[in-house]
Amino acid sequence: MLRTHHCGDLRHENIGEKVTLSGWVQKTRDLGGMTFVDLRDRYGITQLAFNIDTNTELCLQARKLSREYVIQVRGKVIERSSKNKKIPTGDIEIEVQKLNVLNSSKTPPFTIEDQTDGGDDLRMQYRYLDIRRNPVRENLILRHQLSTETRKYLDSQDFIEVETPYLIKSTPEGARDFIVPSRMNEGQFYALPQSPQTFKQLLMVGGIDKYYQIVKCFRDEDLRADRQPEFTQIDCEMSFTEQEDILNMFEGLTRHLLKKIKGVELDSFPRMTYEDAIRLYGSDKPDLRFEMIFFEMNEVTQQNNFMVFDSAELVVGICAKDCAEWSRKKLDALTDYVKRPQIGAKGLIYCKYNADGTFKSSVDKFFSQDDLAKWAKQMNAEPGDLMFLLSGETDKVRKQMNELRLQVAEQLGLRKSNEFAPLWVIDFPLLEWDEETERYHAMHHPFTSPKPEDIYKLENSPGEVRANAYDLVINGTELGGGSIRIHDKELQQLMFQHLGFTEDEAKDQFGFLMNAFEYGAPPHGGIAFGFDRLCSLFGGQESIRDFIAFPKNNSGRDVMIDAPSKIDNAQLEELNIKLK
Amino acid sequence: MLRTHHCGDLRHENIGEKVTLSGWVQKTRDLGGMTFVDLRDRYGITQLAFNIDTNTELCLQARKLSREYVIQVRGKVIERSSKNKKIPTGDIEIEVQKLNVLNSSKTPPFTIEDQTDGGDDLRMQYRYLDIRRNPVRENLILRHQLSTETRKYLDSQDFIEVETPYLIKSTPEGARDFIVPSRMNEGQFYALPQSPQTFKQLLMVGGIDKYYQIVKCFRDEDLRADRQPEFTQIDCEMSFTEQEDILNMFEGLTRHLLKKIKGVELDSFPRMTYEDAIRLYGSDKPDLRFEMIFFEMNEVTQQNNFMVFDSAELVVGICAKDCAEWSRKKLDALTDYVKRPQIGAKGLIYCKYNADGTFKSSVDKFFSQDDLAKWAKQMNAEPGDLMFLLSGETDKVRKQMNELRLQVAEQLGLRKSNEFAPLWVIDFPLLEWDEETERYHAMHHPFTSPKPEDIYKLENSPGEVRANAYDLVINGTELGGGSIRIHDKELQQLMFQHLGFTEDEAKDQFGFLMNAFEYGAPPHGGIAFGFDRLCSLFGGQESIRDFIAFPKNNSGRDVMIDAPSKIDNAQLEELNIKLK
Repeated sequence: MLRTHHCGDLRHENIGEKVTLSGWVQKTRDLGGMTFVDLRDRYGITQLAFNIDTNTELCLQARKLSREYVIQVRGKVIERSSKNKKIPTGDIEIEVQKLNVLNSSKTPPFTIEDQTDGGDDLRMQYRYLDIRRNPVRENLILRHQLSTETRKYLDSQDFIEVETPYLIKSTPEGARDFIVPSRMNEGQFYALPQSPQTFKQLLMVGGIDKYYQIVKCFRDEDLRADRQPEFTQIDCEMSFTEQEDILNMFEGLTRHLLKKIKGVELDSFPRMTYEDAIRLYGSDKPDLRFEMIFFEMNEVTQQNNFMVFDSAELVVGICAKDCAEWSRKKLDALTDYVKRPQIGAKGLIYCKYNADGTFKSSVDKFFSQDDLAKWAKQMNAEPGDLMFLLSGETDKVRKQMNELRLQVAEQLGLRKSNEFAPLWVIDFPLLEWDEETERYHAMHHPFTSPKPEDIYKLENSPGEVRANAYDLVINGTELGGGSIRIHDKELQQLMFQHLGFTEDEAKDQFGFLMNAFEYGAPPHGGIAFGFDRLCSLFGGQESIRDFIAFPKNNSGRDVMIDAPSKIDNAQLEELNIKLK
Repeated sequence: MLRTHHCGDLRHENIGEKVTLSGWVQKTRDLGGMTFVDLRDRYGITQLAFNIDTNTELCLQARKLSREYVIQVRGKVIERSSKNKKIPTGDIEIEVQKLNVLNSSKTPPFTIEDQTDGGDDLRMQYRYLDIRRNPVRENLILRHQLSTETRKYLDSQDFIEVETPYLIKSTPEGARDFIVPSRMNEGQFYALPQSPQTFKQLLMVGGIDKYYQIVKCFRDEDLRADRQPEFTQIDCEMSFTEQEDILNMFEGLTRHLLKKIKGVELDSFPRMTYEDAIRLYGSDKPDLRFEMIFFEMNEVTQQNNFMVFDSAELVVGICAKDCAEWSRKKLDALTDYVKRPQIGAKGLIYCKYNADGTFKSSVDKFFSQDDLAKWAKQMNAEPGDLMFLLSGETDKVRKQMNELRLQVAEQLGLRKSNEFAPLWVIDFPLLEWDEETERYHAMHHPFTSPKPEDIYKLENSPGEVRANAYDLVINGTELGGGSIRIHDKELQQLMFQHLGFTEDEAKDQFGFLMNAFEYGAPPHGGIAFGFDRLCSLFGGQESIRDFIAFPKNNSGRDVMIDAPSKIDNAQLEELNIKLK
C-alpha cells in the first residue's frame, strides 16, 4: 500500500499514529537542525519533519529533494510546535522514519502555485503540470460537481440519459461539420454532431418521453477568443410538453445547481420577450445584475437643429446613477471605447445632471437647460446622475448602447461574479434575414415551431413570425436555449420551403426525421445548455478554457500533444482520399 | 398542460378524479356499445372507455383511431368492471369526456409489441419505432441505471469525472484510427480516440489522483458480429496505487452494480493467473458459472498405439457430469460442432462411464476397460459421467476444448443469464508474438508495466515476462481490463524499444507522455470496462446492439439516417482533401 492517508487528512486527533503518505514535494526548507518538506497531493498539504541530529542520513536525503519529486514517507504524526492556521493539517507534522523517492522531477517550466509565473502558452503546453495547480484542479472539480448535480436533478425528474451516436450524417445547414472518412464505405463520410438535435427528436418519437445527455458536440468554425471546436452540452428534450413546462423544469435545474454548488437561493426567474430585451437592453442576453435600461429619446432630442440626432432613426439613452462627477478623461475614454471599430459608434453624447440641479452636456450649443431637463425627465434621472446618448440606425445604435451599458457597469463594479441574475428571454423571431445569402435562416434551427397565431405571416412577413423559442440568460451570458419543436410533417415541410430547401434537399438531409413524423410524433420540445460556459459562470471567470482539462488553442490545436498532425499516406490510401 | 398524469400512474385511489392523459393508441376494441382504447406512454398503459349511448359522437371519433395515433384525452377515472391484474392500472379506466388527436400515424412497418413481427433490418431502419417497444426501452433504461450507479459508486470513492478530448492525435500503434481532416491546419488530421489512455495517464501526472469517465471510443476495424465502430467505456485511473488497490476498488464497483441493479450479492471475486486460466479452461476468460475444468491426459492416454493421442503435444479432457446416457446422435452433433472450420478439431473422442461401472468409448479398439478406468480416475469421473477428449498442439487443442466445454454447458443449461460468476484473471503476459509482423506486440498496450521480478527476461525471453495486468471476467465475458502503468521514463523507453519503436517514432507519437514522465509522474494504474457489454450482461442478452439507442450495422452504417454519405466537393476542397 503506497499510502494510508491523503495529504489533507491528518488532524490533531491523529497525533501518535503511524502513517504512510505519498505525494509531490511542494517545497523544502532547511533550518539548520531541521529540514521541513511540504508534501502535496490532490487533497492537501502535510508538513514532513526531518531532524539532522536524530536521523542524520534521512535528513541529508531529504535535503536533496527538489520541487515536484514524488516521494513516499512513513512516520509518526506529531504535534507541530508552531501551528499553521492557514491549512487544515496545520496542527500536525510527520516525524519521518522512512523516505522513498518514487520518481524524480526536472524543474518545472513554471511554478506549481496558485499564482504561477507561467504564461498561457507554456501552461497549455505543459497542461499536465498546470492541472497540479489548485485553481485549475478546483475548476475541474467544480465541473464534475456541476455534472453530478445536473444528473441528480434530471434523474429525479424521470429523465433518461441516452447516448446518441458521434458518427452521423453531414448536413450543410448550420455551422460547418467536422467530417470523418469512412474506410468501409468508399467515397463516403460521417460527420461529427454539432448537437444531437435530430436524435433527441427521434427519441421523443420513440416514446422516451424525457431525455438528457451531457455530450460533446463539434463545430468546425473559425475560432473566436473563447470558442472551442469541441464543446460540451447538457442536452434535454421532453414530450407532451409546452413551453411553460420546459421553462419551469429547467428553471428548477438552474435553481438546484445554484443552491447546491453556490449556496444561492433565487426567486422565480423573470421573463422578457425578445422584443423587450432588444428595446430595453439592446441585446437578447441582457445582464440584469444591474438596471440601467435604455430610454428612447427621439421625442425630447430631435428638432433641436442638432443634425446628429435629427437624422437618426433612434436616439437612445442610459442613465448612470451618481456618476455626474466623472472626469473628462474618463468620459473621453468611454467615447474612444464606443468609437472602436468593433463597436462603431460615431461619437458619444453625455449630459451631467449636477448636484446643484444644473446640466452640463457635450452638446450645450444645441440644447438649453430646459431641453436637457426634458432628457432627465425622460430618463428618470436625478441630480448627481450622468446621462449617455447614442444615435443612429436602430439596430446598430442599440448594439452600441448595449456595449456602453456593459462598460459603464464594469467601471461601476456592478458585474459581480458572485451575484446571479437569471432571465428567460422568450418569443424569439423564427427567422432572421441573412444579408450574405439574401435569404431567411432559422434563428434557432429549422425544427423550431412558429407560434400558431403567427403562422399566417410566414408568407408575407416572415421576419415577424415569432417562435416558441427561449433562451436562459444569466449575467448577460446565454447559458442555454431551446424551443418547442415542430412535430407535424406538413408544418416541417412548410418550414423547409421557407428556408429555401428544395423538396429533394429536405428529403436528402432530413428524410429520416420527416419519415419519423409520419408515425405518431408527439408534441415535444427541449433545451441545450452550454456546459463549458455554465462552468465558467459558476467559477466566476470569463474564459471557459480553464474549465476544460485539455483545451485547444485558437487555431484548433492541442499544443500539448501536438494535434492535429500529418498522417501516413498509407492511412489516407485506405480511406480512399488524398491531399489536394 | 398536455397531461396531468402518465399512463402508468392511476390506481384505485384515483377513482373519481378528473385527469388528462396523452400517449399513443396501442389498440382499440369495439364491443358494440363500448369502445375501448389502450393508451400507452413510457410509463404504462391506461384503458380509455367510450360509450356509444352516452356520447355517440365521441365514441364514433374513437372508433376512427388507428394504432400509434397520438391522442390527448380528458375524462374521469372510474372503476373497471372487469379488472386486469396484469397491469398496474388494471383496476381503473378513463371515462373519456374529451378527445384530441395530437398527431396521426401511418401503419407502422412492424407491430409495437414485446414480440414484434419486424426483422432486424426493418427494426434498425425504423429504430425510432423499435424504441417504443418495451424490451428496447427497458434496455435503454437499464443502461441509464448502470451509468447512474457507476457514477454514484465512483463519486463516493472520490473519483472525479474529467472529460478528455475527442479530437486527438493519430497513432499507428493499436487498432486503426478514425481520422478527421483539419481545415485550419492544412494537410493535417485529428484522430478520434480509441481510448483516453494517454490523457488519463496525464491526469495522473497532473495530480487528479482518481479519474473516471463514461466515454465514447472509436475503432475503425472490420466489424465482427457484435462490434461497433463507436463504443462506450467506463474508463478509470488511480494514482499511488498497486494492483491490489485497483482490484479491490473495481470489485467494489461490480458488486455495487450487481446488488443495486440485479439484487445479487456476491462474495469476494476469485482470482486466477492467466497461465492457470489457459491450462484449466483453455481461455483467458473462462465461464465459471460451471466447473468442468480441463484435465491433462497425456500420461494415461499415450503409449497405447492410438496414433492420434501418441502424436499429440497435449491430450486434454473434460468430464460432463451425469451425461453417460447422451445419444449417439447428440455425440455425433458435438463431433460435427468441434470439426467446424471455426473450431478446427480433427475429431472428438468420448468415453461413457456407465451407471453399471463399465466404460464405452469411441476408441474401444485401442483402450481396455482398465485403461479407461485410468481416464476416469484422472478426471475424477463417476459412474453416469461422460468424458470428452481432444488432442493436438497445446494452444490449438486448448482453444478447441474451450469451445466444446461451452457448448456442452450450453446443452446442459449451465449458462444461466441470471447467475453471475466473476473472476479476476491476473498476471497476463506483457507481450505476445505476432505471426504476421514477426515481432512482439504489447498484449494490453505499450504503457503496461512488467512485473519487476520479470524485467530481466525482457532481453532473452520476452514472451515469458508477466505484466501487472488484469481482466475482470464475468460469465465468460471480458468485462474490463487494465494494468499498473509504467511511470518511469527509462522503463517506458525500454518498452518502446522492445516493441520495435525507433527512438524517433516513440518521440513523435508519445513524446508528450515521455516528457510528462520527467516531471514527477506518480505510480498509477487503472482499468476500463466495456460499457455496452456490461449492459448486455446485466440485461441477460448476448448482443450489445439492443443496448445502444442507435447502433450501426456490420458495414458501419446507420441505416436509419443513411450515414455515412457523400459530401459536397466544396466541403472537401475546404478541407484540402479529395477523393482518390
